[in-house]
Amino acid sequence: MNPHLVTPSGKPRARAFAIPFDGTPGPYNAITDVEGVSVGYTTLISGDGPLVPGKGPVRTGVTAILPRPRADLATPMFAGMFSQNGNGELTGWHLIEEMGGFNFPIIVTNTHSCGLTRDATIKWMRRVMPEALDDTWGLPVAGETWDGFLNDINGFHVTDAHVFAALDAASPGPIEEGSVGGGTGMITFGFKAGSGTASRVVEWGGIRYTVGVFVQSNFGKRHNLSIRGRPAGRELAEPKLVEGTPLKEKSSIIGIAATDAPFLPHQMKRLARRMPLGVAATGGFGYNSSGDIFLAFSTANASGVRAAPGTFGHAGFIPDTDIDRFFDAVIQSTEEAILNALVANDDMTGINGNFVPALPKTWLEGNFGRGE
Amino acid sequence: MNPHLVTPSGKPRARAFAIPFDGTPGPYNAITDVEGVSVGYTTLISGDGPLVPGKGPVRTGVTAILPRPRADLATPMFAGMFSQNGNGELTGWHLIEEMGGFNFPIIVTNTHSCGLTRDATIKWMRRVMPEALDDTWGLPVAGETWDGFLNDINGFHVTDAHVFAALDAASPGPIEEGSVGGGTGMITFGFKAGSGTASRVVEWGGIRYTVGVFVQSNFGKRHNLSIRGRPAGRELAEPKLVEGTPLKEKSSIIGIAATDAPFLPHQMKRLARRMPLGVAATGGFGYNSSGDIFLAFSTANASGVRAAPGTFGHAGFIPDTDIDRFFDAVIQSTEEAILNALVANDDMTGINGNFVPALPKTWLEGNFGRGE
Amino acid sequence: MNPHLVTPSGKPRARAFAIPFDGTPGPYNAITDVEGVSVGYTTLISGDGPLVPGKGPVRTGVTAILPRPRADLATPMFAGMFSQNGNGELTGWHLIEEMGGFNFPIIVTNTHSCGLTRDATIKWMRRVMPEALDDTWGLPVAGETWDGFLNDINGFHVTDAHVFAALDAASPGPIEEGSVGGGTGMITFGFKAGSGTASRVVEWGGIRYTVGVFVQSNFGKRHNLSIRGRPAGRELAEPKLVEGTPLKEKSSIIGIAATDAPFLPHQMKRLARRMPLGVAATGGFGYNSSGDIFLAFSTANASGVRAAPGTFGHAGFIPDTDIDRFFDAVIQSTEEAILNALVANDDMTGINGNFVPALPKTWLEGNFGRGE
Amino acid sequence: MNPHLVTPSGKPRARAFAIPFDGTPGPYNAITDVEGVSVGYTTLISGDGPLVPGKGPVRTGVTAILPRPRADLATPMFAGMFSQNGNGELTGWHLIEEMGGFNFPIIVTNTHSCGLTRDATIKWMRRVMPEALDDTWGLPVAGETWDGFLNDINGFHVTDAHVFAALDAASPGPIEEGSVGGGTGMITFGFKAGSGTASRVVEWGGIRYTVGVFVQSNFGKRHNLSIRGRPAGRELAEPKLVEGTPLKEKSSIIGIAATDAPFLPHQMKRLARRMPLGVAATGGFGYNSSGDIFLAFSTANASGVRAAPGTFGHAGFIPDTDIDRFFDAVIQSTEEAILNALVANDDMTGINGNFVPALPKTWLEGNFGRGE
Repeated sequence: MNPHLVTPSGKPRARAFAIPFDGTPGPYNAITDVEGVSVGYTTLISGDGPLVPGKGPVRTGVTAILPRPRADLATPMFAGMFSQNGNGELTGWHLIEEMGGFNFPIIVTNTHSCGLTRDATIKWMRRVMPEALDDTWGLPVAGETWDGFLNDINGFHVTDAHVFAALDAASPGPIEEGSVGGGTGMITFGFKAGSGTASRVVEWGGIRYTVGVFVQSNFGKRHNLSIRGRPAGRELAEPKLVEGTPLKEKSSIIGIAATDAPFLPHQMKRLARRMPLGVAATGGFGYNSSGDIFLAFSTANASGVRAAPGTFGHAGFIPDTDIDRFFDAVIQSTEEAILNALVANDDMTGINGNFVPALPKTWLEGNFGRGE
Repeated sequence: MNPHLVTPSGKPRARAFAIPFDGTPGPYNAITDVEGVSVGYTTLISGDGPLVPGKGPVRTGVTAILPRPRADLATPMFAGMFSQNGNGELTGWHLIEEMGGFNFPIIVTNTHSCGLTRDATIKWMRRVMPEALDDTWGLPVAGETWDGFLNDINGFHVTDAHVFAALDAASPGPIEEGSVGGGTGMITFGFKAGSGTASRVVEWGGIRYTVGVFVQSNFGKRHNLSIRGRPAGRELAEPKLVEGTPLKEKSSIIGIAATDAPFLPHQMKRLARRMPLGVAATGGFGYNSSGDIFLAFSTANASGVRAAPGTFGHAGFIPDTDIDRFFDAVIQSTEEAILNALVANDDMTGINGNFVPALPKTWLEGNFGRGE
Repeated sequence: MNPHLVTPSGKPRARAFAIPFDGTPGPYNAITDVEGVSVGYTTLISGDGPLVPGKGPVRTGVTAILPRPRADLATPMFAGMFSQNGNGELTGWHLIEEMGGFNFPIIVTNTHSCGLTRDATIKWMRRVMPEALDDTWGLPVAGETWDGFLNDINGFHVTDAHVFAALDAASPGPIEEGSVGGGTGMITFGFKAGSGTASRVVEWGGIRYTVGVFVQSNFGKRHNLSIRGRPAGRELAEPKLVEGTPLKEKSSIIGIAATDAPFLPHQMKRLARRMPLGVAATGGFGYNSSGDIFLAFSTANASGVRAAPGTFGHAGFIPDTDIDRFFDAVIQSTEEAILNALVANDDMTGINGNFVPALPKTWLEGNFGRGE
Repeated sequence: MNPHLVTPSGKPRARAFAIPFDGTPGPYNAITDVEGVSVGYTTLISGDGPLVPGKGPVRTGVTAILPRPRADLATPMFAGMFSQNGNGELTGWHLIEEMGGFNFPIIVTNTHSCGLTRDATIKWMRRVMPEALDDTWGLPVAGETWDGFLNDINGFHVTDAHVFAALDAASPGPIEEGSVGGGTGMITFGFKAGSGTASRVVEWGGIRYTVGVFVQSNFGKRHNLSIRGRPAGRELAEPKLVEGTPLKEKSSIIGIAATDAPFLPHQMKRLARRMPLGVAATGGFGYNSSGDIFLAFSTANASGVRAAPGTFGHAGFIPDTDIDRFFDAVIQSTEEAILNALVANDDMTGINGNFVPALPKTWLEGNFGRGE
């Protein structure tokens, strides 16, 4: 099946409805199009009915993004972070700002399990690469968005084993989207959303580079939803979701951009600062309760970045004069990743019968058609 | 006993050796001189001999700083953060930068348990103030420094129960210093250090305000140690600590400044940015491996900060023209807190027989004398 | 005439073509809807034909924005700045970041005269308010964008007298747009642009506040121009402008947002950070050569902001929970201000016969219609 | 004469009084020890007696720092900026934060002429390198401190010609210090100060690199002055300077660090962030009225930094693990540069008979001795 149209489990993606996009996606239209990047999920769905904290219902999970092949996870990536609205957490900020990069996997989950997943990532690294931590420390990047409308978030259902499972499951190739992994209980513009991804191929100097974006999408007010310029949110006006459970906007988006194109740390910050422009294209403006935090990293310069003490590091980089096409790729991939998270989804009922509808496929088909 | 000279357990503080300082400390010369602020510790010391990861030896712990009385912990504080060298973690950055403040307790521990203590703080808040999290989230401030020279840091010995115990133990009044709480396994300038605190009284407009600082001190190269202008580090030259265990600098300092003086968020950032100048006074320059991260908060304006939707917030503040005396208080308190962490201490042996000496009291007495 | 439809000189504004916008503009749909704010221009247009540096042709000018009435210009405004792409200059950054605000007029001109206009603003303040500078200094906010495609920018034609004239001319009420003031020689999406403004009324707590935005608009690649979702840039495909003078993107946008709503400095930074989302709505993504720098200030709390030494400052503020509607107002005003700069314009020929067309009114009328 | 002991004009430097310092200075103990860096001054001293704005007395000037040889001034330097207290101006912030560097000369003068010197630097570049500005712009770095206690600052005595003269005068080799150039009217700890410089040699990987610092020093309260640990300020207690003219602290320090060691932009920010620690060593804590702003740049990687569009840039860099010795060099050079600005000086009388004493040489000799 065409990985641009359907997810591995067969869910439609945005292009399945012929939504038109700019730019050229990679083979999987996913962050995993960037060579060496892999993604794994643990999805936790259990129970129904009234919330009993600690029992459930559970609608949450863990997403692991490995920026390099497993054997190279201790090698830093040049990276930059940007917070469009900081009502959230993405650890590692101080490190990345200081050192221009980070190493180890990136982990994303619900707000109240963000710390556990951070430490569990260290434990997992200790398991797969014990020597890497023998005389030093790990400062993993761990992010979160809030799933408490559907999930027993104060039940703290995520465990170390769930984190290890997501990390162990990380694979290249096409990846699932929608209500999986850390995105399991997430909502966007009042519709069921969660995990989404997209990519763009960028040619420069005769070389084909890839920019891939992954989002855990959980933001936005219904009436703002815009799909490639069409006012979807206004046409799909905001109902009470079910009797007695209006959806308050309790939002956030974590966005991770990867590229194999070589850039220096200050350039990675430039790329990260473009991701909110892709969010804005869908109608997301970083509202007050939102943690809209973005990380961009480059897998290039792997040998030059980790210079041994006493030896020169070295890095090649694409000059700033030529960076615009990469800005475009980041913005386009971010926008499409969000729409994929919305499209590759179904209705979900969570705690206390709280209900979140999927973005209606009939509306998509009526407005855009069917892709091939 | 005079709380300026000895800790509650009877350990000497810097003033016990007549080390001269500028400014006027509060009654306890501690962060707890700021009304409403309390501190609690869990100290974990067990085992001796060779490192067996997961078994020990254990030299670590948890420090809890409650910025407000327990019943008011959901009320935000205006705050600002600053990273002099970001090779470390202090969560909550994005939130504080965006919203100008934070709420909930502050928690500090070792590097690899920082995430667990963050989430456990949410669990504890859920226990003591369940309604505060019913339809929203917590984004606690959690910090760390690395204790792997003495502690089985990859044994992950800190548990939720340890965090709860530190939070439950938090009390106003004089507080212990040295190898307690998160500071248990910490080292500064090659001497045993850890937790330290100090305060200054600042008069303004006829009012007596207090600035208090707490540090988890774990930084510095021996030869740089300067005590009130005297080159202590050079005189106490750096030996191998014991046969075969040279101490590599694996460092960091987390500094927390509290005040009851009213300032706006941008002013709190100004205060936070002065803390590294107090560190520099002792010989700490934010070396590469260090996570020197600082947070300053104000307990003032409690009613005005948390305005209900639809109503005005309001805040009084000391004008910037008068802020210098508070800068001085922050710098002086930071310097003295570090020296207290060094002085209120004893030798410690940890994993694999790794040994860290205390700063020699004889040198202090010989150079400064005895305080009264 | 309806100031929503035409400028004081009778040029059409975006609403003259029934372009639909969100939100409710103020009476003049201008930054001057914020009480106390006034704007003045000096426009310099002279000469034709080949460039003779120092002689011309001249297509430049100066824009003065007085944030408060003349007598109150020494009273600071709480403010925040944000740079989406920093290939430009807007002085005062360090001051605003440190003190949370600024005072004195804001001045905007071409890139190579930015310094002169900064100092000249001090001279003018010295003239109108001599005592304000007797024992202190001024650090004015001065911005720039590049007009060297049309203007003899290396001729340095702006003088102190031009700055004084713009400052003296500042008036409340409806203001001119297009090729006036600092915007005289500016270009946006390959069409003639320059100065533009818009405003939104925001109700909160039963009070009507105003957000007003002024832009000096000089950015963008033709094919990206989007007008309320319509791909104007693609339909109006990019020609060489005249034989032999392709337009390279040499861009920038300076955006100034004003409000009478009371916010603290960290909140003003939040508002400033939304302005690029309004730029993005038109197709501007902060490309490499662009100085996209934004300043937001609040005129509220005038008496409380400038506390005398030894006395409390005080400020009321709208709580963060209610800030979203102000975000919307900033984004909407920024978008409309850019479109006004494009619509209220005519073709212009500058140095060496370099030609920049106006955005075709026929296209606007054909796509949107006529407003009333 | 030994350039470590005396300036070119024969004024004593700090080492002339055997003040002990750490580290090894370069041949001239000056920023010009960094190959390719040159410094030029215009010093304006005229008139005596009562202030007549526009007439004088004049005690001001211009300092030009050329980071590269004249022919290479268009080639960018990787650079980073840091503001410890932002009550001042150093233009170019947005550019350096975005692009990781800058080009063109650096210019420093008094607060009210900062803009003129910025634009005049563009004019000078246009003169010496016309093609560099033909189809693009310049965004020079221009800084300032306030000299209004001695100088008719509101007389605006600095002209374009003075800027050109300073730029034309720039030379490598030993450079003058004290009351010259932009530092002519400056004051530090209540003593006459101004321009100062120092350098350190740093060995790494078998290579000798140089770190050089230049300061325009104009900060500090008398009682805080500390000279290598001795409380000079308290011993030289603060008198009214002359009858009726107490010196209010109206302060600032601009610090420029140069190195030929190769570092990436994020590393240059790290170096810049250490300069306040050198200021603090002398007793400067970034008080409220101070513009303590710092810039660090690297002359290395000249060919790799300016990659042509379509071709890779490339840069070697010293790894972060080895950066501490460069931190030390920056801190030590900053401290010594400030002391040089104080020592290489004489009493000065300016407007209205305002008098500023030199730091007493007898005190220096009595406390430290004579160097050889």
